[in-house]
Amino acid sequence: MPVAVVILAAGQGSRMKSDLPKVLHKVAHAPLLVHAMRAAQSIEADRIVVVTGHGGAAVAAAATDYAEDTVIVTQDEQLGTAHAVQQARDALADFDGDVVVLYGDTPFIREETLQDMLSARQSGAGIVVLGFEAAAPGRYGRLVLDQSGGLARIVEAKDASAEELAITLCNSGVICADRSTMFDLIEAVGNDNESEEYYLTDLVGLARDRDLSCAAITCPEAETMGVNSRVDLAAAEATFQAAVRLEALENGATLSAPETVHFAYDTYIGRDVVIEQNVVFGPEVTVESGAHIRAFSHLEGCHVSEAAVIGPYARLRPGAEIGGGAKVGNFVEVKSALVGTGAKINHLSYVGDAEIGADANIGAGTITCNYDGVFKHKTVIGARAFIGSNTALVAPVTIGEDAMTGSGSVVTQDAGDGDLAIARAKQVNKTGLALRVMNKLRAAKAAQLKDK
Amino acid sequence: MPVAVVILAAGQGSRMKSDLPKVLHKVAHAPLLVHAMRAAQSIEADRIVVVTGHGGAAVAAAATDYAEDTVIVTQDEQLGTAHAVQQARDALADFDGDVVVLYGDTPFIREETLQDMLSARQSGAGIVVLGFEAAAPGRYGRLVLDQSGGLARIVEAKDASAEELAITLCNSGVICADRSTMFDLIEAVGNDNESEEYYLTDLVGLARDRDLSCAAITCPEAETMGVNSRVDLAAAEATFQAAVRLEALENGATLSAPETVHFAYDTYIGRDVVIEQNVVFGPEVTVESGAHIRAFSHLEGCHVSEAAVIGPYARLRPGAEIGGGAKVGNFVEVKSALVGTGAKINHLSYVGDAEIGADANIGAGTITCNYDGVFKHKTVIGARAFIGSNTALVAPVTIGEDAMTGSGSVVTQDAGDGDLAIARAKQVNKTGLALRVMNKLRAAKAAQLKDK
Amino acid sequence: MPVAVVILAAGQGSRMKSDLPKVLHKVAHAPLLVHAMRAAQSIEADRIVVVTGHGGAAVAAAATDYAEDTVIVTQDEQLGTAHAVQQARDALADFDGDVVVLYGDTPFIREETLQDMLSARQSGAGIVVLGFEAAAPGRYGRLVLDQSGGLARIVEAKDASAEELAITLCNSGVICADRSTMFDLIEAVGNDNESEEYYLTDLVGLARDRDLSCAAITCPEAETMGVNSRVDLAAAEATFQAAVRLEALENGATLSAPETVHFAYDTYIGRDVVIEQNVVFGPEVTVESGAHIRAFSHLEGCHVSEAAVIGPYARLRPGAEIGGGAKVGNFVEVKSALVGTGAKINHLSYVGDAEIGADANIGAGTITCNYDGVFKHKTVIGARAFIGSNTALVAPVTIGEDAMTGSGSVVTQDAGDGDLAIARAKQVNKTGLALRVMNKLRAAKAAQLKDK
Repeated sequence: MPVAVVILAAGQGSRMKSDLPKVLHKVAHAPLLVHAMRAAQSIEADRIVVVTGHGGAAVAAAATDYAEDTVIVTQDEQLGTAHAVQQARDALADFDGDVVVLYGDTPFIREETLQDMLSARQSGAGIVVLGFEAAAPGRYGRLVLDQSGGLARIVEAKDASAEELAITLCNSGVICADRSTMFDLIEAVGNDNESEEYYLTDLVGLARDRDLSCAAITCPEAETMGVNSRVDLAAAEATFQAAVRLEALENGATLSAPETVHFAYDTYIGRDVVIEQNVVFGPEVTVESGAHIRAFSHLEGCHVSEAAVIGPYARLRPGAEIGGGAKVGNFVEVKSALVGTGAKINHLSYVGDAEIGADANIGAGTITCNYDGVFKHKTVIGARAFIGSNTALVAPVTIGEDAMTGSGSVVTQDAGDGDLAIARAKQVNKTGLALRVMNKLRAAKAAQLKDK
Repeated sequence: MPVAVVILAAGQGSRMKSDLPKVLHKVAHAPLLVHAMRAAQSIEADRIVVVTGHGGAAVAAAATDYAEDTVIVTQDEQLGTAHAVQQARDALADFDGDVVVLYGDTPFIREETLQDMLSARQSGAGIVVLGFEAAAPGRYGRLVLDQSGGLARIVEAKDASAEELAITLCNSGVICADRSTMFDLIEAVGNDNESEEYYLTDLVGLARDRDLSCAAITCPEAETMGVNSRVDLAAAEATFQAAVRLEALENGATLSAPETVHFAYDTYIGRDVVIEQNVVFGPEVTVESGAHIRAFSHLEGCHVSEAAVIGPYARLRPGAEIGGGAKVGNFVEVKSALVGTGAKINHLSYVGDAEIGADANIGAGTITCNYDGVFKHKTVIGARAFIGSNTALVAPVTIGEDAMTGSGSVVTQDAGDGDLAIARAKQVNKTGLALRVMNKLRAAKAAQLKDK
Repeated sequence: MPVAVVILAAGQGSRMKSDLPKVLHKVAHAPLLVHAMRAAQSIEADRIVVVTGHGGAAVAAAATDYAEDTVIVTQDEQLGTAHAVQQARDALADFDGDVVVLYGDTPFIREETLQDMLSARQSGAGIVVLGFEAAAPGRYGRLVLDQSGGLARIVEAKDASAEELAITLCNSGVICADRSTMFDLIEAVGNDNESEEYYLTDLVGLARDRDLSCAAITCPEAETMGVNSRVDLAAAEATFQAAVRLEALENGATLSAPETVHFAYDTYIGRDVVIEQNVVFGPEVTVESGAHIRAFSHLEGCHVSEAAVIGPYARLRPGAEIGGGAKVGNFVEVKSALVGTGAKINHLSYVGDAEIGADANIGAGTITCNYDGVFKHKTVIGARAFIGSNTALVAPVTIGEDAMTGSGSVVTQDAGDGDLAIARAKQVNKTGLALRVMNKLRAAKAAQLKDK
């Protein structure tokens, strides 16, 4: 059966105290909305409809940026969840299948859970609601089951009897029904309540009135965790990190201090990778087997090949491709650069918009001068080349294979294979001058202090 | 009613195993003593008297350094808390009002708690004692209440009956009374006990003997946390950090991993500021709304304006003033420098004693040579100037607006607006020399290895 | 009585999902095996025998690398613990004394515990087994005591009666007996069980059959913690770190955020040392009293003298010897170098294979060019010398006392005491050229954009 997912992402999130729409706040470098979209993708949703409202343009951009074919609909006024889903009616008019409603601020619904819901639909339930056993049910809506274990109705906490309040099975808000059922029932939802809003929870009662069977599926409470404040956001991040750290360990990586390693939602870590303390992964990083990421390293948008050693204090920026066994050492920044197998950039360098040949050695303090204030230019360094310390490579420039540059040189012209490029002023030693100058300065200082 | 605060800060703190007096150990970059002084300031104390003893000169210096008008008195021998307060008698002889006794090693008493104590005084209590409900009362003194809820007496644990030991309301030591009452009662305190010391806790009994009413105010136990060892100090730091991280989140900052961010006691963070992992704030830092502090950054004594981006791996030292939208990138140190709006110092640079104009671009590896071994000198860079990579700017030096420096130049003379300053040796390429040199070196190495 | 320790280190550790043998995975920079060897050394074992199997060559190398006189024996097939110990029979044939069996994957057995076991032997027990009170006994073997408190037998969980399963005293596997007793009994162990393996636990039953008394010694469960997976390894690391952080605090160091400081197994920290947040210690580091290790520093194989200040963001590599009161600042790497008392390397430098004299000042961006592609060479800098910023020192090179180098110089020849060495191209200012160039570039960019 085809599946469409409607993601509600129109809310303001005023408790975030932010100018950024709530669903665009990030967990593990992906907006909350993207986490919900990934849940939708995990069940191979045929269509994803995002309902936007507050900050709609930015939310729409984030959605289509992540998945181009996302359908965006707008909820101009926020009149409740049923009203929000109703905005997707036209976008799904031609769609024949099940519709699942997810929430842009609820990032952790797992594939297995959604599959359980779809299976319940396959088994004949007209409407399937996702519930969870709440540790502190408090103000959550309660799922009231009938004698056969079907879902009888959802009762809001404020309307619940004492007996109903004792129920711990609560409503996550996630719901699934056949498209036509979903929208037919939404049509019937009223707003005769204190907030004058249209609630999706009413669907269950309406369905039962029409003799449609309703089922409740349950998942762990943590999975239904919603984000309403920065504190919630930090808690969601912590939950996510704990899970991915465990996953990395179980897949055969060594993390000396897992609690100090921060992954992005899409980090790939191979087997026997060692990750030391205080390593941060931004999005789009892959680290192959046997690589070693040393302490205090920061990686984004890069690829680290087998047995390469990164850091400590290395920064790999987008477009860094580090070859097998290569080394990128301390206080080194690499951006948009191919670093060949076995090449070394051990200290205090900036390598940007470059190609470094295999087994080349880049001396400490090397800088690729890739930017002229307007354009970026490329530096190409051949295999086995030896770049002397403190070399400035003014791009565009090519250094041949087995070539060398003299320490402290500003290299503006290409050097051929095996050539030595040098640009250096002659050293002059002025006898005794240092001591004379320093004595004069010290005398001046002493005079100054005396004047005071 | 005017209020004076007496802070007891004479103890040695031998369990700290330190040459530094206990009250000068720091939590969130402020000495414990300063935390107590800030509590005193929170209720707008008209006079603060610090009683010093062990390491008295250093303690006095820290106190007056923080608040110039602090009155310092000395307790030459440590003969108990009542004896300590008595040393403040002369310093308060002319003072007409309430006296609150605080402790230099008890950093977390809140304004609200002290206000409650002062209110109780206003409501007629002759003496007000601060108590707390102890989770493990153990060796704490117990506050025994009378039937009307007033404070009957304080009983030391070792003198307590079984019934009294069952009391969980314990004595924090913080006490408040009218100045003349306080000192009159202290006069009457004896030292007829095992340690032959004069205890402030005796005041309650003496007051009741004179038919003065005594009241107990309570606060959470965490607030009365004292520091006696390095372990306590680390626990106090953790408590403080947890509180300020929560506050930052609640005020609308995003902290990806709050547990890895360390604030100073006076850090200011605006709304929608993003703080990534592993950021350390030293004292006197303000970060305006929308600024982004990236991972592994270290800030002290600096100001970051709206929408500026700092780090990763940026170090801002005292006197760094970062303009709106400016960027300070990786492995960059900025000290005593104004960085104009939109200016960029993206990589591997040291900028000290400088002014950087708006939208200037400082290339990788730029160094302001601000120190001649004795004096510091200033570097001024105009708006929109472009400093080439690896430029050494020998201060004092001025680079004009829209001016440029050639990569690798040592700039010792001023450059006018729009000028290009360049100091560079001519590049020479020696054909095949690199390969010949390297082959010779490799041959020498091979010979060496053979010899072994 | 002489003591020999047999360490079983032959297992594959397939749950580690690693190509590295399990016992070579590290906690606090020492292989698990080395932790077990240190336990053996703590009781001054006269002989240490390591039984290797999977990855035997690497395990043997690690063992003899740590302690040269370790005896290595090989267990070709893994046929159970008794079989493993039997491989040590020949290596101990001439040994007269007690034999303790430890495990290469159980790193935390304390000296006190092993002494307790040896004392029990002295008191007449033929066999001594180490047990622990398990919080969750589950699948552990149970130690069944007799009425006099002696050890009656060890029963495997799967063979235990309901009554025996209720026992919480469990078997750690650590066992001690006189050499001849140990091997005589092992001779009698059979493999008539499901796995067809020879189990050391059978020794107790066999000993009782021969009327030998058996004793059980207990230790805290944490001490018997074994490592079978990466998750276990991370937990072991956390346990170790918590213990050494506490020890550092109790010895009089200040750790602002202990949970962010990572020690090696052999780190030495003096009194009144301050360690800020996010500091990582590799092996062989000693830090003397009063030194200050600032945030984000990384130290390995180095010595920091009294009152020296390291960091933030300093990296000390093996062979760095930092003198009293010296400073190594941000983005500085020091390797195989003596840094004299009071010397300063404050920013963005690489100092390798060098001697820096007392009170010398090394400017920002200084690089010792110590490597010519094949050999390493030495840089010597005299006392009070002043190395200008961005100086490249091409080793071998000597800078005299009180000498100076001009900023941006490439220094290839020695400079005498008090001399100024300078190698610098003349600065030329090209009037208005920067603005003309930039305008041309901007025009080109505009044209490009128009074309699109």
